Amino acid sequence: MRVIGIDPGLRTLGWGVIEMHGSRLTHVENGLCCSAGKDLGARLLSLHEQLTEVFRTYEPAAAAVEQTFVNRDGAGTLKLGQARGIAMLVPAQAGLSVGEYAPNAVKKAIVGVGHAEKHQIAHMIGVHFPGVKLAGADAADALAIAVTHAHHLQSGDRLQAAIARAS
Amino acid sequence: MRVIGIDPGLRTLGWGVIEMHGSRLTHVENGLCCSAGKDLGARLLSLHEQLTEVFRTYEPAAAAVEQTFVNRDGAGTLKLGQARGIAMLVPAQAGLSVGEYAPNAVKKAIVGVGHAEKHQIAHMIGVHFPGVKLAGADAADALAIAVTHAHHLQSGDRLQAAIARAS
Repeated sequence: MRVIGIDPGLRTLGWGVIEMHGSRLTHVENGLCCSAGKDLGARLLSLHEQLTEVFRTYEPAAAAVEQTFVNRDGAGTLKLGQARGIAMLVPAQAGLSVGEYAPNAVKKAIVGVGHAEKHQIAHMIGVHFPGVKLAGADAADALAIAVTHAHHLQSGDRLQAAIARAS
Repeated sequence: MRVIGIDPGLRTLGWGVIEMHGSRLTHVENGLCCSAGKDLGARLLSLHEQLTEVFRTYEPAAAAVEQTFVNRDGAGTLKLGQARGIAMLVPAQAGLSVGEYAPNAVKKAIVGVGHAEKHQIAHMIGVHFPGVKLAGADAADALAIAVTHAHHLQSGDRLQAAIARAS
């Protein structure tokens, strides 16, 4: 089962696709969608087209998006919200429901602690998937979101299996 | 030339289409897109589908979206941002650049003062387009945005005409 993680941003949107084989996870691909265009509409359109193409190419069966950290910078939150709207729309257009994970939950799943630094995420992604070339920090974050979602799905599977054995 | 105005919101997105005949404006249609679905992705998808259908039906040649008022409620700003991402994407997918107007600019264009109340917008839209039935306050706001954009386009036309006469 293929899982995509998405780290939304208006300039750069990171994505990472992994494959779940039971409890084993393997890396498929990671990359960045970089927005282009002279106005906001054009930039959102370019993100939508690039991310749609990623879905067409890798056909993930599950998707997760990082929950955005809301801060006091209202203008920044609004920009991120607009990019996040696109990041949520594309999986929905592909018929997928979208998992959402707070940055701290992702850090805890990957590094083991919720207050990990950004470079520790990239480091641990390298440990999870040795030899994988990362397109950038946002792509590493996206892979971390995909891994978090895969763990969540696996624990659901284990629960289902335990229920089946018990019944 | 048909102009659409859009007032974005995650629950309800207002839209209004008008026709510009030189300096005269007539009402075409107004309405609301109401989001449905159990999660955020599904709600954004339903807004995208409904607004895309409005564009297919009325084929506007120009579009404008209200600039979002950024406040201290970060979670509210993020929600609105996600809906605004969809409101900006649909015109861009139709090949249109999108005008953006601050709420005060819209109020000033319609009511004459920037600090007008919301009900005054609906009242003045009734004066502009007598007998028109409004689908709701968000649809009235959307028509106000369309009128503001039409005025902006008309002033551009007048400038172009003056330049042509002078040259």
